[in-house]
Amino acid sequence: MKRTTYCGLVNESFLDQQVCLQGWVQKRRDLGKLIFIDLRDRTGIVQLVFSHEFDPAALEVADQLRSEYVIEVAGAVVRRSDAEINSKMKTGTIEVEVHQVKILNKAKTPPFYIQNDINVTDDLRLKYRYLDLRRPEMQQAIILRSKITQAVHRYLDEQDFVNIETPYLTKSTPEGARDYLVPSRVYPGHFYALPQSPQLFKQLLMGAGFDRYYQIARCFRDEDLRGDRQPEFTQIDLETSFLSAEDIQKITEGLLQRVMKDVLGVDIKFPLPRITWDEAMNRFGSDKPDTRFGMELTDMAPAVKDVDFKVFQTVLEKGGQVKAIVVPGGADKYSRKEIDAKQEYIKRFGAKGLAWLKVTDDGFSGPVAKFFKDSVDSIKQTAQADVGDLILFVADKRKVVADALGYLRTSIARELDLIDKSKFNFLWVVDWPLFEYSEEFHRYIAAHHPFTMPNEEDIGLLDTDPHQAHAQSYDIVLNGFELGGGSIRIHQRAIQEKMFKALGFTKERAEKQFGFFLDALDYGFPPHGGLAIGLDRFAMLLSGKENIREVIAFPKNSKASEPLTNAPSTVVQKQLDELGLEIQDD
Amino acid sequence: MKRTTYCGLVNESFLDQQVCLQGWVQKRRDLGKLIFIDLRDRTGIVQLVFSHEFDPAALEVADQLRSEYVIEVAGAVVRRSDAEINSKMKTGTIEVEVHQVKILNKAKTPPFYIQNDINVTDDLRLKYRYLDLRRPEMQQAIILRSKITQAVHRYLDEQDFVNIETPYLTKSTPEGARDYLVPSRVYPGHFYALPQSPQLFKQLLMGAGFDRYYQIARCFRDEDLRGDRQPEFTQIDLETSFLSAEDIQKITEGLLQRVMKDVLGVDIKFPLPRITWDEAMNRFGSDKPDTRFGMELTDMAPAVKDVDFKVFQTVLEKGGQVKAIVVPGGADKYSRKEIDAKQEYIKRFGAKGLAWLKVTDDGFSGPVAKFFKDSVDSIKQTAQADVGDLILFVADKRKVVADALGYLRTSIARELDLIDKSKFNFLWVVDWPLFEYSEEFHRYIAAHHPFTMPNEEDIGLLDTDPHQAHAQSYDIVLNGFELGGGSIRIHQRAIQEKMFKALGFTKERAEKQFGFFLDALDYGFPPHGGLAIGLDRFAMLLSGKENIREVIAFPKNSKASEPLTNAPSTVVQKQLDELGLEIQDD
Repeated sequence: MKRTTYCGLVNESFLDQQVCLQGWVQKRRDLGKLIFIDLRDRTGIVQLVFSHEFDPAALEVADQLRSEYVIEVAGAVVRRSDAEINSKMKTGTIEVEVHQVKILNKAKTPPFYIQNDINVTDDLRLKYRYLDLRRPEMQQAIILRSKITQAVHRYLDEQDFVNIETPYLTKSTPEGARDYLVPSRVYPGHFYALPQSPQLFKQLLMGAGFDRYYQIARCFRDEDLRGDRQPEFTQIDLETSFLSAEDIQKITEGLLQRVMKDVLGVDIKFPLPRITWDEAMNRFGSDKPDTRFGMELTDMAPAVKDVDFKVFQTVLEKGGQVKAIVVPGGADKYSRKEIDAKQEYIKRFGAKGLAWLKVTDDGFSGPVAKFFKDSVDSIKQTAQADVGDLILFVADKRKVVADALGYLRTSIARELDLIDKSKFNFLWVVDWPLFEYSEEFHRYIAAHHPFTMPNEEDIGLLDTDPHQAHAQSYDIVLNGFELGGGSIRIHQRAIQEKMFKALGFTKERAEKQFGFFLDALDYGFPPHGGLAIGLDRFAMLLSGKENIREVIAFPKNSKASEPLTNAPSTVVQKQLDELGLEIQDD
Repeated sequence: MKRTTYCGLVNESFLDQQVCLQGWVQKRRDLGKLIFIDLRDRTGIVQLVFSHEFDPAALEVADQLRSEYVIEVAGAVVRRSDAEINSKMKTGTIEVEVHQVKILNKAKTPPFYIQNDINVTDDLRLKYRYLDLRRPEMQQAIILRSKITQAVHRYLDEQDFVNIETPYLTKSTPEGARDYLVPSRVYPGHFYALPQSPQLFKQLLMGAGFDRYYQIARCFRDEDLRGDRQPEFTQIDLETSFLSAEDIQKITEGLLQRVMKDVLGVDIKFPLPRITWDEAMNRFGSDKPDTRFGMELTDMAPAVKDVDFKVFQTVLEKGGQVKAIVVPGGADKYSRKEIDAKQEYIKRFGAKGLAWLKVTDDGFSGPVAKFFKDSVDSIKQTAQADVGDLILFVADKRKVVADALGYLRTSIARELDLIDKSKFNFLWVVDWPLFEYSEEFHRYIAAHHPFTMPNEEDIGLLDTDPHQAHAQSYDIVLNGFELGGGSIRIHQRAIQEKMFKALGFTKERAEKQFGFFLDALDYGFPPHGGLAIGLDRFAMLLSGKENIREVIAFPKNSKASEPLTNAPSTVVQKQLDELGLEIQDD
């Protein structure tokens, strides 16, 4: 038998025709003389009917069928009786009267149902990933991801990008995240590293004159995992020569437009909104603002600077900020206890407290309301707050204020369901600082990476006050997530050397780690720049998922292991000996 | 300035128009008052003219330009004077009179010329790969490779294949080639392995119901390198459910047709020729025959079985073969010494000798001619040899005869330039043995891999005489190279277990290495099969190169290192400590 169509595609246009179908038994209803089977493949489900009347032998086989058996059937497409019509199913008006059936494979009872709603641990899903992936929502997510990549290939091909593969076995450059290492057998004691990104190779390809490069590239980072991190992840990676930041953004917008149209049928308005990093931090307290809702941060200094409330006064005198967000109708929605919990939470951002006012008909209520009783109007006006609203204040250094209020803004919007989930708000955040201070490492690190070009007018600052410089970099943000980022790169050795110096590299260290690249810059590199988009995150957002594991066929779990194959695993001594390695004693 | 077009695209349609170009200085001819610059980008070269007449400042800048400087120019496209017309150049009838020029970057003198013909070591080319890749032939090869991948994405998307990424950090299964290992930091003493191919994952995806999967996947094998091997290489990898071997071959033929058309504009006739493995070995002495020329192997037993030549008699009595190839006009072309060298060479295949006859007007000449003086006509007729030809005989076991004569056939065809290099001869080799005896391991190994389905009628042999079984496998051959291969896979646990047993696995070992996969087969796997094509080799053959390094942007050298970055390299102790590893003492 040859399959004539897929289960989910059988519709009334097939009425009274013979079809041959192959797929999995989703469900069996045995009415004795009549057996109904829901047959499933990647396109959906169709109802099969077996009856003594159509074929006694087929009915006998149907009697043996169990969930997830693989079968092939031939039969006639007929209209369902009115009682059997299921308007929720694509194929709900027809069924297939089976006159021939063959069991292609049997199946043990699966550890969970093959349906969207299951209530099992993530590790059980991953251990039986081949079953988990049979569930319609997983099928759809993986197919959506495939559609994204297809749109990317088509668009970038049309834009004359050359698809070039860069190596996965390459040099360890211990800068930024931790490398995964691969021991060399030919050179014992030496290691390749898996790339954290193709950054240097794509720049070398610009040096090689390819003009426009792209790759859908796997990247590897051995970091502690969070919800949206995986040891390996995928980037839509592109690089161009001779183009401005705006040119590159325009190409990217075309790419996003194509993906949204091809994958979701959604038209996105272009050009996309652009705000500077400064503005994003000021208005949203975030460098990746979710603009699907309001609740922006307001500078309250004008309204409170003369109020006799010591906390605010002290902060303002030290050059700090007093800012607030207004939770619409929040006065009734949050108890003192709930607000206290939020105050506790934001301590992780360095915030020492959370002042709050509920706007009442009579002014303000709340523990500090008495201090502000003479400024009700000016505060309400400045914050644009109305009766029934809750005003949350944070007073501190700029970064603390932004982090704390930025967090409160998005977490409260989620709690109160203020976000229109049908929206896809893309946004450019531009003009980033070149460096940021790392509390973890107690030094300045590159805000993006060490190859980012400073703004033309800031190049001089590299010699005098590098950490004030801003960069020709840009992030693309979608619904509050950093979807991707890029920059114009440094293409001249002298500037690259200053950059390494500003990052605290000695000349020797820069030479040892990046000497080959500095040398390359001596040989006529063109001005160039590019961008990388996180494919996993993009697919996650477009499929409405909340974890990138849901759009990766075989992800690692939160402990970086793969419950299906049990990787990582021990190896035999011979393998270690060939690599000249020993396991350290505990 | 914004680039208005690319260098190689400027033609007479631009006459008298202003253009802005960006690129690299290929060459500078200084005639004093006139300077000519060849400007290069990825599309080709255009001639720029600087003159006091057009712009004195530009002429002054032109005077400073050196090879590989990066510049941008604006100027007018004019027709060249008759004397300057270069009919070999795409842009040879025009030039650009420059009135504005800017140096975007300077360059040191490169270690070799940026042109097709260079005579430097491979390692120097790899150390300066960004310069090597500027050479037109390398640009073309990498762009051709990109075009192949674009055609693959388009075609397989149209055929409803889902593009799915499988993990690169996975489980070590020490079967077949050596794995590259990746130490885990979270689980010290445990290792991921880089996949030798996505084989098991793509089969799991069929189990997951994706029906049609493909991926352009990187694969890793830590083997000793040869000319056409790299530690990492790329596969066009596909898998389908419910299809027959013939269905899969038909899809593959469509894919090849599309690639040949899109990339080279070549129409390939379909369906492709198909021969069995037996026939390929018999006629060509190779499982990947080059059919662009004749010189097929002839069974000479009928003609020599009664000749009193002991070597042949002994072999035939033991059930061996006596076969020959005829080198057309070879009598004059090969001296006894040269033939002796070939005899020496084929000893590596186990051949004990090489008997040969030159066909003369009077019969045969050569050291053993006297034995055959009574069989001249029958030998000439059986071998279809004419006066002036050279007949080369090998008498031995079947495999030795095939290997030795197969080698002689292709090496002589190359020496004598008998191969039409404009041909693309695709060919299916089908019906392979399921197992082959490995002289290296002194045991039977899977001819393809342990997941290959035996022919339906041979499944019973798995219990009785497994090594006689043939497989539902097929290789696609192009011009004497194995371009790819595939098979119908085993989808039932019982057969897979028998297969492991026939390969000498104990039950425990099969369980330890492949238990997760055997378990998966319990849950309703559909019949499935697929194929993988070596992208590197495909690109190499289509671009007429002789080493896959020529179609890989950043390959490793023949010692698996990368002269550009110096990978693999030592790492700092902290990295080893985090992984719980020590370097073994010598």
